[in-house]
Amino acid sequence: MPDKVGIRGAGKRRFIDELPFCRAMNMVLEEVGEGTAVVSMPWNDRLVGDPVTGVAHGGAVSSLLDTCGGVAVLSHPAKPSTTATLNFRIDYMRPATPGQTITAHATCFHLTRTVAFVRTLATDEDKANPVATATGAFVVQA
Amino acid sequence: MPDKVGIRGAGKRRFIDELPFCRAMNMVLEEVGEGTAVVSMPWNDRLVGDPVTGVAHGGAVSSLLDTCGGVAVLSHPAKPSTTATLNFRIDYMRPATPGQTITAHATCFHLTRTVAFVRTLATDEDKANPVATATGAFVVQA
Amino acid sequence: MPDKVGIRGAGKRRFIDELPFCRAMNMVLEEVGEGTAVVSMPWNDRLVGDPVTGVAHGGAVSSLLDTCGGVAVLSHPAKPSTTATLNFRIDYMRPATPGQTITAHATCFHLTRTVAFVRTLATDEDKANPVATATGAFVVQA
Amino acid sequence: MPDKVGIRGAGKRRFIDELPFCRAMNMVLEEVGEGTAVVSMPWNDRLVGDPVTGVAHGGAVSSLLDTCGGVAVLSHPAKPSTTATLNFRIDYMRPATPGQTITAHATCFHLTRTVAFVRTLATDEDKANPVATATGAFVVQA
Repeated sequence: MPDKVGIRGAGKRRFIDELPFCRAMNMVLEEVGEGTAVVSMPWNDRLVGDPVTGVAHGGAVSSLLDTCGGVAVLSHPAKPSTTATLNFRIDYMRPATPGQTITAHATCFHLTRTVAFVRTLATDEDKANPVATATGAFVVQA
Repeated sequence: MPDKVGIRGAGKRRFIDELPFCRAMNMVLEEVGEGTAVVSMPWNDRLVGDPVTGVAHGGAVSSLLDTCGGVAVLSHPAKPSTTATLNFRIDYMRPATPGQTITAHATCFHLTRTVAFVRTLATDEDKANPVATATGAFVVQA
Repeated sequence: MPDKVGIRGAGKRRFIDELPFCRAMNMVLEEVGEGTAVVSMPWNDRLVGDPVTGVAHGGAVSSLLDTCGGVAVLSHPAKPSTTATLNFRIDYMRPATPGQTITAHATCFHLTRTVAFVRTLATDEDKANPVATATGAFVVQA
Repeated sequence: MPDKVGIRGAGKRRFIDELPFCRAMNMVLEEVGEGTAVVSMPWNDRLVGDPVTGVAHGGAVSSLLDTCGGVAVLSHPAKPSTTATLNFRIDYMRPATPGQTITAHATCFHLTRTVAFVRTLATDEDKANPVATATGAFVVQA
């Protein structure tokens, strides 16, 4: 599985910039807590998945939530050294409003010796009406 | 939900090029059948999700599979006019080998009046060992 | 899809007793709110899925959460008349402690014209350490 | 996680009978291959999840598929000693026809050192139109 959020010593705030895919999508690490993270993705036209409505591609939202989930895992007090997404389920509630920043919030709510469980939420500027939620299982290494 | 694969009359082979997000990821529609599709994503460094291993970001693989799933739905004999991903679960089996094209295969194996069910598979050049599989439910409109 | 929680006029508190499968599993509807529900399942030996550890079968926990999710959908202020599980993802965090009542909490956190989104949690008597969480999409009819 | 399908030396054909939950649901292990399994569940009225239509509860179908998936994992040539469901996603395509035996087919299509990936399918007597499909990740121990 792609060890896509391995930090390997790099500071959390730095590492998203070190991931070309995340950089290409303009992801910005906003906050890191104890097993929690907030990553934002300012609007840019490359995110568009529907040329008619101008709505962002679901894959862009999913990538943001997956990345944010990985940061949440790595920020868990148990301090796993690396992690990788094992599986991920995303539910789309509504299209993100074109032109608005999409923000992901993730919480690593349980961690075993080999697997971390993560819950994530994506919103645009209308914080009261989520755009998507996702649940993921991540493999971790001590 | 993002109506990210609405074709609205555009030819299937054309429409991926019309989606900025898919174009930015270099997705190429290879085949369209009766409820099936093949979409490839030639390697490019922007896909990298791990700067150390050079492995593609899981979100890139997920975006490819989701897009391919949408094409499969739209190519179903029942001819839905538009579709959007309702939810999607992806399982990652192994990292895609850096430098290789990733190819998605999708089948819309069941369709109701409002929901389409899709099964997808991603491989790199080692076709015998899948990189990821995903199952999705898509909302459809007649 | 099995319209397994259709109430069709029956009082919510009554209807679980009217479902042979839920009755066989001793499910008890504890609370119903505005899009929320609590359903408990007192321990009984028929729930055992591992003869060595005496731990409940995951399917029993899943059935409880799915049922609770359906009640949450039907109790939503939008008052759907019937619902059925479209798909469901459950994550198991730890085995439920043998002999203890398992309790499910469900919230229908979003509802569209055709689909309801539900989040559920299962605990045993150790409320601080969830046994499982699940996310489901349910089809609804007005 | 409930180690609900640990065999611990018992013959595969025997072990379902040793699981009270499976026995209560009349599950019958029909076939075991190299990472594949078939488990059937003859109709009985306790499976009913909708008193009006008489349709089986989705949880019964899910429990059957989950159990069948566990057998498929344990029958993999790598011979894991025990397994437990980590997470499971089921999609319901249509209600199983009341009165008919429901049969689950499972394949463990990938196995890592710690996780097994399983694909399952449920049918009633109309084999051409699946009732449900499910994908699961199982933790395994050598």
